[in-house]
Amino acid sequence: MSTAYNVIGTRPPRHDGADKVTGRAIYGADVQMAGLVHGAVVRSPHAHARIKRVDTSKAAAFPGVMAVVTADDFPQTPDRIVDLGEGETPLSYVRGNVLAKDKVLYEGHAIAAVAANSAHAAEQAARLIEIEYDVLPCVLNVTDAMAAGAPALHKESNVTDHVRHAMGDSDSAFASAAVLIEREFKTATVHQGYIEPHAATALWNNDGRVQVWCSTQGAFVVRDVVACLLDLPVSRVKVTPTEIGGGFGGKIPVYIEPVAALLSKKCGRPVRIVMTRREVFEGSGPTPGSLVRVKIGADASGKFVAAQAYLAYEAGAYPGGMVGAGAMCVFAAYDIPNQTIDGYDVLVNKPSTAAYRAPGAPNAAFATESVVDEIARELKIDPIELRLRNAAKEGTRRADGPKFKKIGCVEVLEAMKAHAHYAAPLGEPSHAEAKRGRGVAIGYWFNIGFASSCVISVNADGTANLIEGSTDIGGSRTSIAMQAAEVLGIPVEKLNPSVVDTDTIGYTAVTGGSRTTFATGWAAHDAAQDVVAQMKARAAKLWEVADVSFAQGVFRAGDRSMTFAELAARLSETGGPVVGQGSVNPRGAGGSFAGVIVDVEVDTETGKTTIVRFTSVQDAGRAIHPSYVEGQMQGGSVQGIGWALNEEYWMSDGGRMMNASLLDYRMPTILDVPPIDTVIVEVPNPSHPFGVRGVGEANIVPPTPAIANAIHDALGVRLRKLPMNPPSIVAALA
Amino acid sequence: MSTAYNVIGTRPPRHDGADKVTGRAIYGADVQMAGLVHGAVVRSPHAHARIKRVDTSKAAAFPGVMAVVTADDFPQTPDRIVDLGEGETPLSYVRGNVLAKDKVLYEGHAIAAVAANSAHAAEQAARLIEIEYDVLPCVLNVTDAMAAGAPALHKESNVTDHVRHAMGDSDSAFASAAVLIEREFKTATVHQGYIEPHAATALWNNDGRVQVWCSTQGAFVVRDVVACLLDLPVSRVKVTPTEIGGGFGGKIPVYIEPVAALLSKKCGRPVRIVMTRREVFEGSGPTPGSLVRVKIGADASGKFVAAQAYLAYEAGAYPGGMVGAGAMCVFAAYDIPNQTIDGYDVLVNKPSTAAYRAPGAPNAAFATESVVDEIARELKIDPIELRLRNAAKEGTRRADGPKFKKIGCVEVLEAMKAHAHYAAPLGEPSHAEAKRGRGVAIGYWFNIGFASSCVISVNADGTANLIEGSTDIGGSRTSIAMQAAEVLGIPVEKLNPSVVDTDTIGYTAVTGGSRTTFATGWAAHDAAQDVVAQMKARAAKLWEVADVSFAQGVFRAGDRSMTFAELAARLSETGGPVVGQGSVNPRGAGGSFAGVIVDVEVDTETGKTTIVRFTSVQDAGRAIHPSYVEGQMQGGSVQGIGWALNEEYWMSDGGRMMNASLLDYRMPTILDVPPIDTVIVEVPNPSHPFGVRGVGEANIVPPTPAIANAIHDALGVRLRKLPMNPPSIVAALA
Repeated sequence: MSTAYNVIGTRPPRHDGADKVTGRAIYGADVQMAGLVHGAVVRSPHAHARIKRVDTSKAAAFPGVMAVVTADDFPQTPDRIVDLGEGETPLSYVRGNVLAKDKVLYEGHAIAAVAANSAHAAEQAARLIEIEYDVLPCVLNVTDAMAAGAPALHKESNVTDHVRHAMGDSDSAFASAAVLIEREFKTATVHQGYIEPHAATALWNNDGRVQVWCSTQGAFVVRDVVACLLDLPVSRVKVTPTEIGGGFGGKIPVYIEPVAALLSKKCGRPVRIVMTRREVFEGSGPTPGSLVRVKIGADASGKFVAAQAYLAYEAGAYPGGMVGAGAMCVFAAYDIPNQTIDGYDVLVNKPSTAAYRAPGAPNAAFATESVVDEIARELKIDPIELRLRNAAKEGTRRADGPKFKKIGCVEVLEAMKAHAHYAAPLGEPSHAEAKRGRGVAIGYWFNIGFASSCVISVNADGTANLIEGSTDIGGSRTSIAMQAAEVLGIPVEKLNPSVVDTDTIGYTAVTGGSRTTFATGWAAHDAAQDVVAQMKARAAKLWEVADVSFAQGVFRAGDRSMTFAELAARLSETGGPVVGQGSVNPRGAGGSFAGVIVDVEVDTETGKTTIVRFTSVQDAGRAIHPSYVEGQMQGGSVQGIGWALNEEYWMSDGGRMMNASLLDYRMPTILDVPPIDTVIVEVPNPSHPFGVRGVGEANIVPPTPAIANAIHDALGVRLRKLPMNPPSIVAALA
Repeated sequence: MSTAYNVIGTRPPRHDGADKVTGRAIYGADVQMAGLVHGAVVRSPHAHARIKRVDTSKAAAFPGVMAVVTADDFPQTPDRIVDLGEGETPLSYVRGNVLAKDKVLYEGHAIAAVAANSAHAAEQAARLIEIEYDVLPCVLNVTDAMAAGAPALHKESNVTDHVRHAMGDSDSAFASAAVLIEREFKTATVHQGYIEPHAATALWNNDGRVQVWCSTQGAFVVRDVVACLLDLPVSRVKVTPTEIGGGFGGKIPVYIEPVAALLSKKCGRPVRIVMTRREVFEGSGPTPGSLVRVKIGADASGKFVAAQAYLAYEAGAYPGGMVGAGAMCVFAAYDIPNQTIDGYDVLVNKPSTAAYRAPGAPNAAFATESVVDEIARELKIDPIELRLRNAAKEGTRRADGPKFKKIGCVEVLEAMKAHAHYAAPLGEPSHAEAKRGRGVAIGYWFNIGFASSCVISVNADGTANLIEGSTDIGGSRTSIAMQAAEVLGIPVEKLNPSVVDTDTIGYTAVTGGSRTTFATGWAAHDAAQDVVAQMKARAAKLWEVADVSFAQGVFRAGDRSMTFAELAARLSETGGPVVGQGSVNPRGAGGSFAGVIVDVEVDTETGKTTIVRFTSVQDAGRAIHPSYVEGQMQGGSVQGIGWALNEEYWMSDGGRMMNASLLDYRMPTILDVPPIDTVIVEVPNPSHPFGVRGVGEANIVPPTPAIANAIHDALGVRLRKLPMNPPSIVAALA
């Protein structure tokens, strides 16, 4: 694999930058069209209740109201198992989460919706929908939900899945361990916290086709879900993705799009629904709170001999939570011959959980990396050195089955060890009551592969248009275009990438799972290769030769040569347009390790933790656009800091979220984070033409345990429950 | 070539039908976006004048005005020869027609434009622009313009081109002719008369890219012209074609798009300009008025021995009119060994002429087919029989060079001869002063080829999305999709065609020149073949076999088979999306013959001509969608009736158009035309995979001479000047 790239590894401006900084970019709520009307959703005030009666008559009679819908307006197709891009699940669950039918399962559960000629009329009319409830007892955490006799959300048990991975003989190995640490950890329910609320517009057109414009991580997933719920073939639904103001996994699920479509069908007008922040918190997917127990045994040299994990994750109101990924990742960083991993998917009366940046992995790593830190202290081995002795490498088998191909765990740890931060003194606390400490941790996230498609058309001016179907969240138009530009031998400024609708490009899976730069970039690479092959044939025709070579943007045969731009100007005369396509569906695509070194200062009086210094290290395989890799690392780090120190769903006993605003739900602000230093490690992914590893997620995994380890280093007390907010620290110190 | 088609030749509903009949379709003036402002254009009241001074200060100061532009706002790039899709021409001419700089050359010539926060403010401010003129004498027809000492529009002579085609020895052959007829004909300047006026919106974006939304026959031509005039690479301009309310060639030229872009650059807002009907008549391209002399000699058996033509066509204000095509077509229907053709492109003080359905051919055929009718009468040979004796066939050489491949002139004539209409009695006139007559004529139009590109993506539900760049004027989404559906072996309802913007599809030339169903359909055929090849490979992978066959929508290997839909559902598991592409650039693409039989009744008192019966016959090669072929034939026939009986630019001596409204410019209404019977002849085009010949144009060629011949049959007088309106007929009878 050549490392002499012209485009890859550079830091060009993003193609969509001007539109985004000047306000031209069209986000979900910016969609405008003639005759647009406004929708409002009625949601449950109860966390668990039977719906006895829904009376929409007063709402329907309210001036300006054009349509009212409930779950009864869905085609009542018989229940069946469907796979809408996130695993198999009953259709009734997908439908039930969009509009509840007989029961509400969480506060904020949607029940009905109104469309009216103004947003105000829609809101007012929504309040006139009368719903009679039979309130049921609720369960709000896994312990209560798994208890005997707990109120059941669906059937008899709230435990809907048990994942088990085992290899070797953990029990015997534990018996031989020199050190054995077993601890229990809890993590809070937290929200993805994207700035842009969900927003969707739908038009059920006269030709029987449904058009949807929305802010989503995956237009084709919206297409699949809307088509399924409306009982239409997928090709009768067209989804145009708008720009997106953040997603982090939370804009993969579909909530309001089918509702807007039903309203549109009734009133014949395009209907727009925009969530409020409260609706986002209460009605869209948080990531699971969890209870995790981890036990690791090591011999005297620090070699881990056995490990055991128990993971109970909130699924929220419907099965299919994140525990599977947690079970894959809990010990993925280490070569441990004997492992037993049990994961439980547990229903609770909270919104159905959604993916959130390496979903499930931070919960698990908080436990594992805290225990590893304890072992290092017990054995008096440097915590990075201990990890290096046990680090996963090419050939290491994970308990869930696969053996790693070439991966960068060792290289990330070595970069951490070599970093100036690790050798630097902690510095003096800022006042007498403050104490400082340092912690480290590592984390893993796999890349999903999945389908992507790109088409490239060459322009006569030596540029090329690229169309693709991946929502651009973090600069992926450019990181994808760069891979095409590298192949075409032209600057990326000469590529013009567009994210298009589902009628225009081949099926492309979600922007998620760290897949976009990896898989859609691969499709762009293939499309560019297709262009090069066709242009070689054009040059051969012009020159009347059999073989033409291409390198560094120049076509050559013997002593003749033509640049890409020169040949682009001659396509018309040599047979017409050149259009290349690339479609991929990679499986088992590799993964990325990340590590954190963090220094904290804790105010022992108030319990407030300040991040003093933070270094994020990650294996990018090959950093296509290093600034975007660094941006992902910084973003994941900040979110990890939020998980660690403040964020949580603060629930009443009855299951109401008490902090459903960005004022009360305390995400980190710029005042809460120091500059985050980033170190990109490059261990090329052997399963990608340029060696790319997806970098969007692994970086959120290590911050919480690294901060917990740093707090322990500072205070000598170990916090095993997130968030480690001031009251928790004060309580721990007491 | 198989004639057993499943899709081709059927009459499915059009994909865009519902949107068009329910008002959902977005036309040029329907484009909406945040911050949109309105443009108005200031136009010359003089047909010929020097511009002494333009003072925009009062307009700029008018409340609500956001920008004012004149020709000085164009980048002042040095003049050079450019080819923007319609032949080579000086850049200064293209620019000068969009905004006049030193001289105005026709009434309605654009000089300046204003953008304001309302359309009313823009109009009012436009009136405040002070322009001082030095009025010059004008020339309004070719005779005056070619006269010695005539006022010159540009340089010394108004004759800007002389086309000459000759073969054999006409003079000697004329000497031997048994019959020799030479006549002079005049045709009027007429407008394409599309219902939707030109409408364009442009945004000069902060990233330096220009976006244009407009009603056009060719988005890529708009891209090329806007980029050229604004001195930008083509890839910095993105053109999104809206639906189009007619074009007929008149929506190929670019008028307001660059002006909207200049205004947008100045004010930073998207600017929309919509022409009024008066602006359409006065400022957009009519088709040339002309003076044509034709001389044909025949031997006693009726065999044409020699022909000579003199064609002087108005170019309008800039060179590059339609005389070239007229010279190609004037004798194209006949096998005449000795020919001399002289064509002159003549500047006059009228708007620069634009293409209009078989541009140049109706003018020429009016002459030729009238003369042929005279010869038939002279020799007492049935006029269809005379034409059959001389009809062009495969191998017939045209004076302009090429030999015909397989063509359908004979077949069209035979279908006319066999038609019940031709044998039917004329019927009694409706009153005593009325007289009836019958006429026939034929006409030819070539197909241009040019570039087209299609991309097809297969959906999991067994359907496919097709994207293309051809503006859909007459149902071409469907006629193109049908060709893909035929290849894919699925109903066309399973194809979902979209017309996309210039960033999204490979270069595609204008919807014009009878090329769309022909060339873009060919690209769709090729894209579908690409899909089939890829899907065969998927089936081979699934079945683990080397060879898979495909026919009638079914993949087979041995005794195994799978339908298109079954395999479409399994693409994800076999490697991801299947996307096929096809790009073509055919040259010398064939042509189509059309014939007309028409019965008229002329009121000898008022001179009013009523069309009593009308039969249109045309060779479609292969009629993809017979209803659309028939629609084209009927449309061309109605326009031909308009040319024949009423339409003309009625000019004052000073060059003002006196009838610039649809009330005064008399296009046929539904009351003016009888049901038009259509007969599709199919002589497959050997240069197209399905045998398609473009059918959009040839049908306008024969109506005018057929009606003239019928009027002669009725009255015994021959009209040689269009329109043959009531005053002309009364005068001829007097």
